[in-house]
Amino acid sequence: MALLQYTQKIENYIQSYSFPNSPINLYEPLEYFMGLGGKRLRPVLTLMAADLGGKLCDDAIHAAMSIELFHNFSLIHDDIMDKAPIRRGLPTVHEKWNSNIAILSGDVLLVKAYELISKQNKEHIPELFQLFNKTAIEVCEGQQMDMDFEEREDVTIEEYIAMIRLKTSVLLGCALEFGFIISDQSEQNRKNLYDFGVNLGIAFQIQDDILDLFGDPEKVGKQVGGDVKSNKKTLLYLVAEKICKDQNIKELNRLKEIKDLDKKVFETRLFYQEIGVLDETKNFLDKYYGDAMKSLDAVTVNSSKENLLEMTNFLFNRQS
Amino acid sequence: MALLQYTQKIENYIQSYSFPNSPINLYEPLEYFMGLGGKRLRPVLTLMAADLGGKLCDDAIHAAMSIELFHNFSLIHDDIMDKAPIRRGLPTVHEKWNSNIAILSGDVLLVKAYELISKQNKEHIPELFQLFNKTAIEVCEGQQMDMDFEEREDVTIEEYIAMIRLKTSVLLGCALEFGFIISDQSEQNRKNLYDFGVNLGIAFQIQDDILDLFGDPEKVGKQVGGDVKSNKKTLLYLVAEKICKDQNIKELNRLKEIKDLDKKVFETRLFYQEIGVLDETKNFLDKYYGDAMKSLDAVTVNSSKENLLEMTNFLFNRQS
Repeated sequence: MALLQYTQKIENYIQSYSFPNSPINLYEPLEYFMGLGGKRLRPVLTLMAADLGGKLCDDAIHAAMSIELFHNFSLIHDDIMDKAPIRRGLPTVHEKWNSNIAILSGDVLLVKAYELISKQNKEHIPELFQLFNKTAIEVCEGQQMDMDFEEREDVTIEEYIAMIRLKTSVLLGCALEFGFIISDQSEQNRKNLYDFGVNLGIAFQIQDDILDLFGDPEKVGKQVGGDVKSNKKTLLYLVAEKICKDQNIKELNRLKEIKDLDKKVFETRLFYQEIGVLDETKNFLDKYYGDAMKSLDAVTVNSSKENLLEMTNFLFNRQS
Repeated sequence: MALLQYTQKIENYIQSYSFPNSPINLYEPLEYFMGLGGKRLRPVLTLMAADLGGKLCDDAIHAAMSIELFHNFSLIHDDIMDKAPIRRGLPTVHEKWNSNIAILSGDVLLVKAYELISKQNKEHIPELFQLFNKTAIEVCEGQQMDMDFEEREDVTIEEYIAMIRLKTSVLLGCALEFGFIISDQSEQNRKNLYDFGVNLGIAFQIQDDILDLFGDPEKVGKQVGGDVKSNKKTLLYLVAEKICKDQNIKELNRLKEIKDLDKKVFETRLFYQEIGVLDETKNFLDKYYGDAMKSLDAVTVNSSKENLLEMTNFLFNRQS
């Protein structure tokens, strides 16, 4: 099955999935938010994994949907916390309705995600349920760490990677392992596929940090330098801080204070290239990308892994 | 086992239950909130039901705790939505920390509740899981209806009872049924005990509405008339509206406009007694209390139901 067919399968399911009609203020925001689209990357991973394991059944689609519902729950609540007005080009739930409705709709969406797990084949429920709980807790912990980092000036590279691992990467691992639990794969295979997802997620987030400053605006689809403009502690910044230690820290601090934002982005980019920040950050990306590939290699199945490799290429070709 | 012993069992468990140490901003608010106390009514119901079914085992205590964690999750989020500064005499989570922390701590507390269910005996997980999902969705729906009612002027008595059923009563039913699922009771017994809990919850909420205006402040433990002062649409008010229809509606509207709050409470109380609002509301209380007792009667077990009856007496003796 081609990549687009998996996406289509999920889109069809999302369109057929309906929330109750009432209370309208609880469910209308969810119909709206689920309809905003997105890459549907996570549920596609579940389907691909189930297919790779030889069981692309109805349960796999329901499990994929539970991952997508969870992801959207976390976006709705994160948007409140980040005071984000826009998501995928349209108003966020707390902006279009209000924060109370966004809190409660988010809550019920999380329960709806669990509901789909409770309807799985009974023999798979305990394992799916435990992995889902572990992942959900980690995602919350990652979000809290991210908020904490905004207030801290001593964040290390290791802490940053631990944060993105929890906040965004473990859900990719979980999405993939869901497909392997449903297709009754061995524990070792499950672990390797999970590790593939987690490492891929970390590499993807690092690429995101790099593209924000060094990407081609037309290909990335957004203005460059947003992270620099807001002095966000991305991996680039933390690597710069480490490289500058003692010597160039004054220059780094000067860049943070530049009021003209375009000048700030331009000079920071130049400085990061000169002192080797870009190369060092790319080394991190390569390390996690390499680890991901090693984990995928270690998965032993009869079917071809070409779909997962194609998806990986798709995710990592934006910068070329 | 006496009522106090069940409470003690739960308190001991809550004190032995510890959240992870980090991130501190995620878990410290939960340690704090769980330590605020309360009657622990819901988990005690689970233990009593399990005991009545003959299986007061470790699983019953974990299930009871999952109910208490869920209840506290909903309180933390409701407090944000209601802008409540105080809970059990101390600052609420969003007041002591902030709204973002209250949202995220609440989220992770809900997952922690699920975690305890996922650790149950495998044969009970599907039934506990499904009942918990259904209940959690209903509680969210009830909270949304409650918020919607604040903005509406045409709320009916039936809608109000449907709201309190969802917002507060189904969780009592769920708490009790959890104990009966764990003790492998028949579906019919489970349904009857669930109905007992739901009807008891509705009766209890109606009693709460009555006591707010007609209770003895010393016995109720708070100032009387809070609902009247804020023009809250309680059952008393909705019954008054129905009785007044066409004839006395002007008088009811006049009462709502009185600026002197003590005078407002005094006159409203008098008016409600005169036109039969108190009696009619007590009829509702008696109906649901009676339905609860009928459902409990229909539960067929060998052990004595005296603990549940004692608990019921405890809940309904505050007004005497």
